[in-house]
Amino acid sequence: KNAEFFKGISKIPFKPEAGPTESLVFKHYNASEVVMEKTMEEWLRFSVCFWHTFRGTGADPFGFPTLVRPWDDGSNSLANAKRRLRAGFEFFTKLGVKYWTFHDRDIAPEGRDLAETNRNLDELAELAGQLQQETGVKLLWATCNLFAHPRYMNGASTNPDAHVFAYAAAQVKKGLDVALKLGAENFVFWGGREGFHSILNTNVRSELDHMATFFRLAIAYKNKIGFKGVFLIEPKPKEPTKHQYDYDAMTVIAFLRTYGLEKEIKLNIEPNHTTLAGHSYEHDIVMSSAYNMLGSIDSNTGSPDLGWDTDQFPMDVKHATFVMQVVLRQGGLQPGGLNFDCKVRRESTDLRDMFISHIGAMDTFARGLKVAANIFKGGDMAKHVEDRYKSFRSGIGAKIESADTSLEELEAFALSQGEPERISGQQEHYENMLNYYV
Amino acid sequence: KNAEFFKGISKIPFKPEAGPTESLVFKHYNASEVVMEKTMEEWLRFSVCFWHTFRGTGADPFGFPTLVRPWDDGSNSLANAKRRLRAGFEFFTKLGVKYWTFHDRDIAPEGRDLAETNRNLDELAELAGQLQQETGVKLLWATCNLFAHPRYMNGASTNPDAHVFAYAAAQVKKGLDVALKLGAENFVFWGGREGFHSILNTNVRSELDHMATFFRLAIAYKNKIGFKGVFLIEPKPKEPTKHQYDYDAMTVIAFLRTYGLEKEIKLNIEPNHTTLAGHSYEHDIVMSSAYNMLGSIDSNTGSPDLGWDTDQFPMDVKHATFVMQVVLRQGGLQPGGLNFDCKVRRESTDLRDMFISHIGAMDTFARGLKVAANIFKGGDMAKHVEDRYKSFRSGIGAKIESADTSLEELEAFALSQGEPERISGQQEHYENMLNYYV
Amino acid sequence: KNAEFFKGISKIPFKPEAGPTESLVFKHYNASEVVMEKTMEEWLRFSVCFWHTFRGTGADPFGFPTLVRPWDDGSNSLANAKRRLRAGFEFFTKLGVKYWTFHDRDIAPEGRDLAETNRNLDELAELAGQLQQETGVKLLWATCNLFAHPRYMNGASTNPDAHVFAYAAAQVKKGLDVALKLGAENFVFWGGREGFHSILNTNVRSELDHMATFFRLAIAYKNKIGFKGVFLIEPKPKEPTKHQYDYDAMTVIAFLRTYGLEKEIKLNIEPNHTTLAGHSYEHDIVMSSAYNMLGSIDSNTGSPDLGWDTDQFPMDVKHATFVMQVVLRQGGLQPGGLNFDCKVRRESTDLRDMFISHIGAMDTFARGLKVAANIFKGGDMAKHVEDRYKSFRSGIGAKIESADTSLEELEAFALSQGEPERISGQQEHYENMLNYYV
Amino acid sequence: KNAEFFKGISKIPFKPEAGPTESLVFKHYNASEVVMEKTMEEWLRFSVCFWHTFRGTGADPFGFPTLVRPWDDGSNSLANAKRRLRAGFEFFTKLGVKYWTFHDRDIAPEGRDLAETNRNLDELAELAGQLQQETGVKLLWATCNLFAHPRYMNGASTNPDAHVFAYAAAQVKKGLDVALKLGAENFVFWGGREGFHSILNTNVRSELDHMATFFRLAIAYKNKIGFKGVFLIEPKPKEPTKHQYDYDAMTVIAFLRTYGLEKEIKLNIEPNHTTLAGHSYEHDIVMSSAYNMLGSIDSNTGSPDLGWDTDQFPMDVKHATFVMQVVLRQGGLQPGGLNFDCKVRRESTDLRDMFISHIGAMDTFARGLKVAANIFKGGDMAKHVEDRYKSFRSGIGAKIESADTSLEELEAFALSQGEPERISGQQEHYENMLNYYV
Repeated sequence: KNAEFFKGISKIPFKPEAGPTESLVFKHYNASEVVMEKTMEEWLRFSVCFWHTFRGTGADPFGFPTLVRPWDDGSNSLANAKRRLRAGFEFFTKLGVKYWTFHDRDIAPEGRDLAETNRNLDELAELAGQLQQETGVKLLWATCNLFAHPRYMNGASTNPDAHVFAYAAAQVKKGLDVALKLGAENFVFWGGREGFHSILNTNVRSELDHMATFFRLAIAYKNKIGFKGVFLIEPKPKEPTKHQYDYDAMTVIAFLRTYGLEKEIKLNIEPNHTTLAGHSYEHDIVMSSAYNMLGSIDSNTGSPDLGWDTDQFPMDVKHATFVMQVVLRQGGLQPGGLNFDCKVRRESTDLRDMFISHIGAMDTFARGLKVAANIFKGGDMAKHVEDRYKSFRSGIGAKIESADTSLEELEAFALSQGEPERISGQQEHYENMLNYYV
Repeated sequence: KNAEFFKGISKIPFKPEAGPTESLVFKHYNASEVVMEKTMEEWLRFSVCFWHTFRGTGADPFGFPTLVRPWDDGSNSLANAKRRLRAGFEFFTKLGVKYWTFHDRDIAPEGRDLAETNRNLDELAELAGQLQQETGVKLLWATCNLFAHPRYMNGASTNPDAHVFAYAAAQVKKGLDVALKLGAENFVFWGGREGFHSILNTNVRSELDHMATFFRLAIAYKNKIGFKGVFLIEPKPKEPTKHQYDYDAMTVIAFLRTYGLEKEIKLNIEPNHTTLAGHSYEHDIVMSSAYNMLGSIDSNTGSPDLGWDTDQFPMDVKHATFVMQVVLRQGGLQPGGLNFDCKVRRESTDLRDMFISHIGAMDTFARGLKVAANIFKGGDMAKHVEDRYKSFRSGIGAKIESADTSLEELEAFALSQGEPERISGQQEHYENMLNYYV
Repeated sequence: KNAEFFKGISKIPFKPEAGPTESLVFKHYNASEVVMEKTMEEWLRFSVCFWHTFRGTGADPFGFPTLVRPWDDGSNSLANAKRRLRAGFEFFTKLGVKYWTFHDRDIAPEGRDLAETNRNLDELAELAGQLQQETGVKLLWATCNLFAHPRYMNGASTNPDAHVFAYAAAQVKKGLDVALKLGAENFVFWGGREGFHSILNTNVRSELDHMATFFRLAIAYKNKIGFKGVFLIEPKPKEPTKHQYDYDAMTVIAFLRTYGLEKEIKLNIEPNHTTLAGHSYEHDIVMSSAYNMLGSIDSNTGSPDLGWDTDQFPMDVKHATFVMQVVLRQGGLQPGGLNFDCKVRRESTDLRDMFISHIGAMDTFARGLKVAANIFKGGDMAKHVEDRYKSFRSGIGAKIESADTSLEELEAFALSQGEPERISGQQEHYENMLNYYV
Repeated sequence: KNAEFFKGISKIPFKPEAGPTESLVFKHYNASEVVMEKTMEEWLRFSVCFWHTFRGTGADPFGFPTLVRPWDDGSNSLANAKRRLRAGFEFFTKLGVKYWTFHDRDIAPEGRDLAETNRNLDELAELAGQLQQETGVKLLWATCNLFAHPRYMNGASTNPDAHVFAYAAAQVKKGLDVALKLGAENFVFWGGREGFHSILNTNVRSELDHMATFFRLAIAYKNKIGFKGVFLIEPKPKEPTKHQYDYDAMTVIAFLRTYGLEKEIKLNIEPNHTTLAGHSYEHDIVMSSAYNMLGSIDSNTGSPDLGWDTDQFPMDVKHATFVMQVVLRQGGLQPGGLNFDCKVRRESTDLRDMFISHIGAMDTFARGLKVAANIFKGGDMAKHVEDRYKSFRSGIGAKIESADTSLEELEAFALSQGEPERISGQQEHYENMLNYYV
């Protein structure tokens, strides 16, 4: 029960002077270090996901599992599930993160029927509660796996079969009960099978209507039981489904507003999904923040030359800087966080690789935070941007700003003032300023 | 004045028995042929765009102009502009289309200042009105070119300089006056420079606010002058700007609904823009129709292996079938139409190529219409889809359909009814049915 | 033993008059019908792959298996393997294809060690030989699975560990023995793990050298045992590995010629791999044929908007026409063929879907063959192309054609003859001609 | 004549202590600083291209020119050409680069016929020679523009019209004469129109044969006149042509080896072309170096979310590090260099932006050089890689290494030694080591 799973690995220390091959230390992340009036821990709110890190096998579409974990006997037993969970909390603790996330089916196996499945989940949730208590690790968010089981192959809330819709609804009900019990700060919906493979066999409008109904029912239940966590939709354009209804941030916002759900649901953005939708890494984080819809971030990366979700650990300081600039600007992510929805490469088969990968990503984001804070404190980049828009602070610009004008008035202005001056956008200068800090 | 520009080419006849090399005949498009109670002409509402077909030069980023038109002396004179316009109407008439479209700056050159520019536009609009009268060709839509002139390099309504915003507003005011005068059935906004090249120098929220204000002012003016045409935004993800705010159909819907503009503006969808946004050819047409936001279609295609807008003539019958199925389903596109926003390849330097390309596209869409109508009349594919969703017409499904249920009731259903049946999605069967018709 | 696995399904008949919903008939493929002096069967040389069709489970990176086959108990037993193989031959026979393909590990399970694995393979190969004898179905090609087992996670012939190289070599030796025994007409190498995930831990040149050595050793052994089948490399750009050394047709040709292997190895082209490499569907088939390196074709398709290998059944007649034009032009594919390296969608869970999907693809290629033959017989498209290059048949062109000239002579020609005429490329005219036939 | 074009801008100094907004100083590039026994200048061999920097107008497919240069009157006169060239050399000198590059048509306008064009080129080459002499700036490479003029719309050496082939040959002859005269260290071929837009009108094999002949004739002439510069082909997958024969590094190597040209021609790699071909930024540099075919580098970048060539200034230190690691490993690029084939954004309209952009890129590569040198000196990453392949240094591995084994021997080894050990690829550890240095 109190076995140690990661023998020989202690709590990861902060050791800024360590060299390149010293891998089980933080060189940049110092949880208690204060940056712009909060600790790093408060700004970054790191979270480890249970699925990739404790349920990932290394299987891919062309290969069998590669990752052998000594505590996992490969069975579906509750005892095995409990060992995995204990190993998880040892990992969170040694790594030094304050949050974790899970899908219902990651922590507890499906039983012979839904009733047994629910009992299994209760039993593991009980243990999770104890472990949270013992370690102080909290639940950033919970979510229901409505995509892996064959019953969901044609969708969950958008399945053409009402029976499946009902089954998914039942699963979410239980998921919300568990989230409430474990004090989840958010609850995520990722609609991996909500979409279509072929337009030929699909009634799009009907499926969207059903999806909206599904969210309405979940909101009603949430309010009824008094769950205070934030509902979040996680957009993804494709994979596993050919086209997913939650394509990207803006698509989800269109859906939420069309169905009047925009006050009840925010977004959990994963940059690897963003790049698969054809945007730049930071795009959906920037856009959802601009629309006041950014709730939380799944912090991972892909390779821009690959067309599927590789869920790699984020190791690029420039990317981390872009993300942390948005976070600083909106005063933090709370109750959201930076969840590592990442997996070690299937070739990274050592237990140490689990730590090394998370440490690298945490150090990367710590650097991103420090760079973003320096840019903020330097002030020159923000000042440049502010000056760029200064014409909207007086005269005709101020009238436009307050929407207190007309095409006629603007035409009169244009006729009298002639051709606008040509003003350089100075992109390369901005890039150089950024490189000064990174 | 009454010179013939396309000598040796008569009105294109319908000649279904023509062979593969006979190029100046329609083999499928028969304007007056009735398909499902409307003529082909009424369903297809073909329109030729003035810009590509009469202002295209064949220049590309690596090459100089290749297309030499005998009526065009290359000058910016009004006389040249008028010759071009007359050549255009001869082309529309000989091709046998009932609609055309233009940007303000295609038909009339900019003058030394805005006042002169407006006078030029008035003069050409006068001639366009006469030619419309003489030929019966009508204006599907007009639009303002707010992207080609250097003043718009940093955006029009989203420019950081209020002076440019005012200039663009003045241009739209004049554009609406001309659209009213020429009886335009729609008015399109394509925001090619509304977006950003670098997030570093951009205040996204501020720019979006300005863009919304711009539309509000245009709506106010439209109502004031009594212009009845439909406002349409044409989404495009990128090119020329790195990121465009009107990325795709759903992004525009999110914007419109966030700013409360969704009742006043619909969408003009161009499939080559859709594919650049990472979707399948028909995707944005399907989605905007599902959201009741489809106004008109720019009918062209790209190459899926190219990452920029090639504006090729649509020659794929399967694609045309997908489009026409949506059009049939929503009872037609009016007051929208199928505008050929296409250009001959820069290597297609003969005058005949102008006709050959349009004829090929019109025949392709005529085939698409006939196939779509046959599918509709066959009824089997629609029936298959309907059956697929039949569980929502009774019992628990009907309750979901009317949103008259709860997670608790659905859980009770799932607990009592057990595992859903696994029902094949039959994608390949649907594909075979489609191939039967195409 | 002589159980029937696909009850209620008889040999698929040719029934050209069948309607859209009649799914278990060929409407176009008529094996014995003569097209340009060969039967359809001889031109098309259809082959069913064993792996997708009999080992595919419907699992994807986000979902568990969906495909339940009544003959498959899910075990690794030899009895199960034999039932699967018998079901396979019943399927091939009822479908009416003359060829099949397999990986060593598809037909026989791995044992506790290599010796046992080899014995398993021998036992199943014995049965395969009998079934081939009984049914007349022949082996288009065999191949070794050098990618699925964890031992190959870092590559097979390019693995940094020589032990793995040796293991892979042993596997290929056995694979060649079996191929010889079963009369395989070709032998394929697909290097799914030959490449790298990260350049940081990789010595590219060393790995390429090892890969070349691997092929040389296999060629030596092939010659020693007298195996006459053609060696084929199947290019793929990425997936599962981030970068694969056999990226596309031209990359493989570069590799083969650099290491002097181009006389011994040809290419097996899969269009879905071609599109993942950023080319058009037919590109690698066209290019490898132009370089006299086209050996065989894996006939499948992807979705151009998806960035991974979906291995869908090819249902597009235009694509099939492009492929069959190349095949007609080079006088056939023999000893290669058209192997359906395709899988039913994971939602296509019925046994009938296995037939429906293959029938749809076979009908598509039968149409492609007929269209290509009609174009060939029509002659007009070929004549247009020939005329386009006619300047190389006399004068300075003929000198260039025979490389019997110099820059000086060509400069003298250009100085004296002046500016070349501008000749239209007529792309749209060619597209219309093609559409006449399709 | 001796007018100063960039008034107020002096030679750019090295000032490492400068702040983020101080833009006309180097903060990292210190030409004479020694890194691993060579100066930065010797390692980096920076070169400015004449076309983007002095002929770029800011026009794009949707917009008119934006860049107004005071010395350029927009005319095609020789006087204007000479002023531009003088401005160029002032720029090179103030920036402090030792190399430049040009296309024939950048520096001298086309005349009424080829003879006049050649005289124009002679006159400007004369001036270029003088300016090289006066400033010490040298010619990294020259090239011929065989793509911009309409005569090349269907290709130059692959044009279906032999007359165009001859014209292109004449142009290359003159280009080689000029390159010889100006002491060019290399000569580049970029085949922007060598390829096809449509396979329907194209005889691929014939065009490839002509292209090979073209290179053979150029090699013969080069040898005849005693030009010692290295011939380089610059691959690009697409744009402007739909498919280009020089798709990527490996495609060019396949072509060169098939036609026996691999001893005479190396590669000039541009990373933005590499990414358009679906590879990672550094891929073609790594691969062509592994094949001993890397001659020179066009140093620029694109945006991974854009599908066309944006030719942006490279500002990413990690990318620069990857490039400089290859350069260090092969002992330098000479006689090649790092040519900035980059253009300022069309919105970067100030003269200062020309400097700022180049300075940013030079500082980025200076940092990349220093990081790469530190990694080299640290030694730990190289040691990790070396250890990874250690099994090839003894026993069966050594036999494989020397290709002195057989499948039989390897099978015996595998049978006796059993299953290989599973060895972690440690990708994340390598990424962390890299991040230590960057």
